[in-house]
Amino acid sequence: MEFKVLKDILSANDQIAVENRELLDGNKVFAVNVMSSPGSGKTSTILQTIKGLKDKVKIAVIEGDVSSSIDAEKISKEGITALQINTGGECHLDANMLNRAIKNLPLEQIDLLFIENVGNLICTAEFQLGMHKNLVISSTAEGDDKPLKYPLMFTVADVVLINKMDLQPYIDFDVEAYKKAVVALNQRAEIFEISCTTGQGIDAWLAWLKKQMGI
Amino acid sequence: MEFKVLKDILSANDQIAVENRELLDGNKVFAVNVMSSPGSGKTSTILQTIKGLKDKVKIAVIEGDVSSSIDAEKISKEGITALQINTGGECHLDANMLNRAIKNLPLEQIDLLFIENVGNLICTAEFQLGMHKNLVISSTAEGDDKPLKYPLMFTVADVVLINKMDLQPYIDFDVEAYKKAVVALNQRAEIFEISCTTGQGIDAWLAWLKKQMGI
Repeated sequence: MEFKVLKDILSANDQIAVENRELLDGNKVFAVNVMSSPGSGKTSTILQTIKGLKDKVKIAVIEGDVSSSIDAEKISKEGITALQINTGGECHLDANMLNRAIKNLPLEQIDLLFIENVGNLICTAEFQLGMHKNLVISSTAEGDDKPLKYPLMFTVADVVLINKMDLQPYIDFDVEAYKKAVVALNQRAEIFEISCTTGQGIDAWLAWLKKQMGI
Repeated sequence: MEFKVLKDILSANDQIAVENRELLDGNKVFAVNVMSSPGSGKTSTILQTIKGLKDKVKIAVIEGDVSSSIDAEKISKEGITALQINTGGECHLDANMLNRAIKNLPLEQIDLLFIENVGNLICTAEFQLGMHKNLVISSTAEGDDKPLKYPLMFTVADVVLINKMDLQPYIDFDVEAYKKAVVALNQRAEIFEISCTTGQGIDAWLAWLKKQMGI
């Protein structure tokens, strides 16, 4: 009985995710769901991407947070539309939250939409949102064992960024061990080493993104 | 109807948490629930504490992870009893998981028990486990805005450690802003600045812990 209820909830989510994708595709919006632990650099990566692409494409951002609007304010300062979802305690975004948010955006004026999910390496991976790509970010400061400890996240990733490469000289992070662990779970995901502080690797990430968007 | 079911589940958890506390108290075991984002240094802090106290008190560790037994293996190498709970996808430990784990430990031979919770700054804060103190760890690399974005975690904390202070020269982390944000949520929690790499601040943390244990 309990399982039946759970199943219905999940398919309701997935059904709305399909509707979200249709809404995006109908308006030619390419959408990326950005997931990571708290503080790995989701907002910084979005800001670097805005800097690199805002002259070429029209960008908007949906910010998902348990509480606060700190990140939406950072994005707005760049002159980019930012819409804040406060989950009020919930540990992830779901398709229904996104549906309401998307319907509040001028989709016909947007080419690229970032969804910054709640900082959480577990629950966010469990919910389909209907976006085109899942971007997973790790920070070198978190250690190289994250793919082994949080396998679902790295299984659903389409692209993985290793951020804070500028800190690597000061810490014990084995890039090859990390990549090997990702590949063991997921041979499809591309992996880029970046630093939002120094700009290292941002060009390669932007090239990948542009290729996905067909621009 | 849904709310009622949820309420029953929660009170079942809290009831088992009370039972856990009675089991611990009956055996004079002092237990600390360790919570943080993935990669903030929960295992490193426990290892530093073992190093500082293992000649004085008998220590055991329960490791909570979605998957893998990497951390339990690190602890075992120090000659310390380590029991692994794999939650199989669940994003937090609950009182029932702890109850089964505690009953598998030789409690009469343990003075200090660490529970290393799943790396998650949201869900873990929602479940009473029956332990004596909640330790919350932040890493400087995560940024100083975490208390603002994940308020419940910092509200339930009895003690907060700012770890990876050795990385502070290389990053933008405002210690005073972080502390101010914690105090705004919780005036009861003590805050220590530490580095598990250099040993900075470990003595102050150990002094606090020994005081709580009455030794």
